[in-house]
Amino acid sequence: MTNPFFKNHGPLKVLDILKLLSIDNIKNINDEIVFDIKDLSTSDKKDITFFHSKKYKDVANITNASYCITTENLKNELPDTCLPLIVQNVLISTSIITEKFYPDSINDNFDKSVLEINKTEFKNKVNYGLNILIGKNVKIGSNCTIGHNTIIEQNVIIGNHCSIGSNVIIRNTLINNNVNILDNCVIGKKGFGFFPINNNNLRYPHVGAVIIGENCEVGCGSTIDRGSISNTVIGKNTFLDNQIHIAHNVKIGENSIIAGQVGIAGSSIIGNNVKIGGQAGISGHLKIGNNVEIAGGSGVIRNVSDNSKVMGYPAKNIKDFLKDNK
Amino acid sequence: MTNPFFKNHGPLKVLDILKLLSIDNIKNINDEIVFDIKDLSTSDKKDITFFHSKKYKDVANITNASYCITTENLKNELPDTCLPLIVQNVLISTSIITEKFYPDSINDNFDKSVLEINKTEFKNKVNYGLNILIGKNVKIGSNCTIGHNTIIEQNVIIGNHCSIGSNVIIRNTLINNNVNILDNCVIGKKGFGFFPINNNNLRYPHVGAVIIGENCEVGCGSTIDRGSISNTVIGKNTFLDNQIHIAHNVKIGENSIIAGQVGIAGSSIIGNNVKIGGQAGISGHLKIGNNVEIAGGSGVIRNVSDNSKVMGYPAKNIKDFLKDNK
Amino acid sequence: MTNPFFKNHGPLKVLDILKLLSIDNIKNINDEIVFDIKDLSTSDKKDITFFHSKKYKDVANITNASYCITTENLKNELPDTCLPLIVQNVLISTSIITEKFYPDSINDNFDKSVLEINKTEFKNKVNYGLNILIGKNVKIGSNCTIGHNTIIEQNVIIGNHCSIGSNVIIRNTLINNNVNILDNCVIGKKGFGFFPINNNNLRYPHVGAVIIGENCEVGCGSTIDRGSISNTVIGKNTFLDNQIHIAHNVKIGENSIIAGQVGIAGSSIIGNNVKIGGQAGISGHLKIGNNVEIAGGSGVIRNVSDNSKVMGYPAKNIKDFLKDNK
Repeated sequence: MTNPFFKNHGPLKVLDILKLLSIDNIKNINDEIVFDIKDLSTSDKKDITFFHSKKYKDVANITNASYCITTENLKNELPDTCLPLIVQNVLISTSIITEKFYPDSINDNFDKSVLEINKTEFKNKVNYGLNILIGKNVKIGSNCTIGHNTIIEQNVIIGNHCSIGSNVIIRNTLINNNVNILDNCVIGKKGFGFFPINNNNLRYPHVGAVIIGENCEVGCGSTIDRGSISNTVIGKNTFLDNQIHIAHNVKIGENSIIAGQVGIAGSSIIGNNVKIGGQAGISGHLKIGNNVEIAGGSGVIRNVSDNSKVMGYPAKNIKDFLKDNK
Repeated sequence: MTNPFFKNHGPLKVLDILKLLSIDNIKNINDEIVFDIKDLSTSDKKDITFFHSKKYKDVANITNASYCITTENLKNELPDTCLPLIVQNVLISTSIITEKFYPDSINDNFDKSVLEINKTEFKNKVNYGLNILIGKNVKIGSNCTIGHNTIIEQNVIIGNHCSIGSNVIIRNTLINNNVNILDNCVIGKKGFGFFPINNNNLRYPHVGAVIIGENCEVGCGSTIDRGSISNTVIGKNTFLDNQIHIAHNVKIGENSIIAGQVGIAGSSIIGNNVKIGGQAGISGHLKIGNNVEIAGGSGVIRNVSDNSKVMGYPAKNIKDFLKDNK
Repeated sequence: MTNPFFKNHGPLKVLDILKLLSIDNIKNINDEIVFDIKDLSTSDKKDITFFHSKKYKDVANITNASYCITTENLKNELPDTCLPLIVQNVLISTSIITEKFYPDSINDNFDKSVLEINKTEFKNKVNYGLNILIGKNVKIGSNCTIGHNTIIEQNVIIGNHCSIGSNVIIRNTLINNNVNILDNCVIGKKGFGFFPINNNNLRYPHVGAVIIGENCEVGCGSTIDRGSISNTVIGKNTFLDNQIHIAHNVKIGENSIIAGQVGIAGSSIIGNNVKIGGQAGISGHLKIGNNVEIAGGSGVIRNVSDNSKVMGYPAKNIKDFLKDNK
């Protein structure tokens, strides 16, 4: 499972899923069950998956899932081992089924389970300030410090030698060793993902976690949202400056440097050894290669291949940009 | 009055107003009084208004106010029923008079009236965390949750089924039903409005409120400033992502979607069903129509008409932009 | 010394410094000592300095320091009175020596010395809210207010008539009279400065302070980082809006106005009477003259001379920009 933090209320009966999606034309389903909902590539035989865009047909072709929520147009991309469940709107249907597996993943109300740290097992184990709250199912390694007014909500794992600042809020997050989270960060809240519906948008579940690799630093006032179905990941020894926003499902590689006020939109993948200048923005669902340099203030709206240096809006080769903008 | 929250210390004598503005050439004023200061369009007969730019001459022509702070150049745009009070600097003079009506609206010191929530009427009515402070003149509906360390200062009305996160600060704000305010937001502080004066800028009053429509969501770390004379308004079912800044007097319509790190400068008006991509900026005093799409990273410096899609800086038709920037 | 806040553990023996830098080819050093490490221009005879880029050769030519960490290529720019200490990497070597003088300046763990304000000398002197923490070596003038949950860590000096908001964190900062710091700011944390090393970046010391001139305002959610070797300075009567990021070593002049979400990268110098529109970004190590206007959303990557108005990315003369972008 991609996330150890949300309780999976599965398995679900396939017949119940069909009912929830108002699908009545599939025969020969009896007592079959599915254990989890996952994306196309991580699903295994016991899972249900979803497939909503041609973009993903290569992974769809080889998915191991036994069931897939999809459309009439896309169903032929699936292997014979995967039964298509045809719906009008794949994402809304996926949201309905994910909520059945993970009913606690829709809203982000504050964690009422928290206790003051001096009433927890961490009383003599952590170097902490005043007014600190710790939720259920929290693990904290050795040699950690936690600043004043910080709230570690339920489902957080913190490694050894970590320094968490003051006024920080963390939930649904796995932090490896030697990580510094500076003041006023909010890490692990649900992403900005919902289906727009007039007068009453429909929020969808976010069952992913945030995973922060060892030796990372996250600057003051930054926000890192947890993933919807996959995780949001910051690779080891990547440093983030202040006021950065990392949206849900983003993966950032190792040894990258991201300057202040950068924003990375949902599901984009950033390579290793990437340098991103201040205030640059990266659109969603992009792939930025390894060793890329993105100049400050750039707006990246297309994939960037390994070893490139880009600048401008839309970002292009930096030499071309500077030549065109003498 | 546009704002139920600031105590109006009026009525004021017109003679006193003339004295404050050093106007001595108006005759036949005796015991006349004015009850409030409002903008040109919302003033009625008992009010004083102000008129400082040709841009507003159409509303000036038909104002109902009996008195108007303005300049020699503009006075002829006013109807006969409105007596012009001629000054050198309309905005500074307006500021002086507004402060007389609303002396509490200049500074934003913390609210000393707050009590811990368990010492208030909300003790058994709200689902709340630890260390929560509630000011005077606060109303909270049924089925609301309020996270840890949150401060609801005086003059806040919250509807039913609202979820307020942790570390949030709210003042002078009216929140309708089913609204989610996520962690670390600051809602309702005075706008960034002042008259630049060497060595000692002059702050002007902000007597407007923030009004948030039902079913809205405001992401982590966002700031929404209250209006100066009118209100700052977010229409119903509009969702804001993290780290957004909405300046004073901005009005946003319904069913709009605003991605992370967007900034909207003072007094701009955004329509319904508008989509604004991450990090886009909108200059002040603009009008963005209904059903507009603004690409992420764009800088909008001119009005945008209904149903347009724009991109770039300065933002223009998206097709033209992409053609020019292949 | 540029910063009164970090304890200088000097003087150091020059022989010990040579050992730390693995320099063994300098003769005739016996008991010589140095009292501090400073930049080229502020060093005096008893100090050691560093010189890593041709850019600074004019100040290098006239430095008063007796010793200078530098490279083979640069050493001839130093005066005869300054002995070059030749190293491979000037900045890493400087970092090692600075850490010896100021061992407390590398990390920014929370301040454990704080006490609740009502247990301090400020109990009856300051107008304060609830849950306020005050560190050692803090001075607060008369007529100040401090909002709820605010943390004034050690080494902060606040003048008279200042208003500090709620949820604010301040350290290593000198605030002059009549300054307003609004809610949720983080002032004085170490800058985003480190040497990138695969798998384990090396943080360098930040011994500079933040200095905020009188009559300034800093908007909600802003971050101002302290300097590395010099200070970060905001000149008097300069107003900053919400969500602004000011990086380490930046100097901003007087009477300037900086709108929301602006970011200024490390070591840039901004003049007096400068106006910067919302979301504009200024690259590092630039010089922006007096009376400059920078349009909102601009990206400034070159120096800007006095009295200029610039716009665009890269920012250029505003008339040219608007003509090119009709």
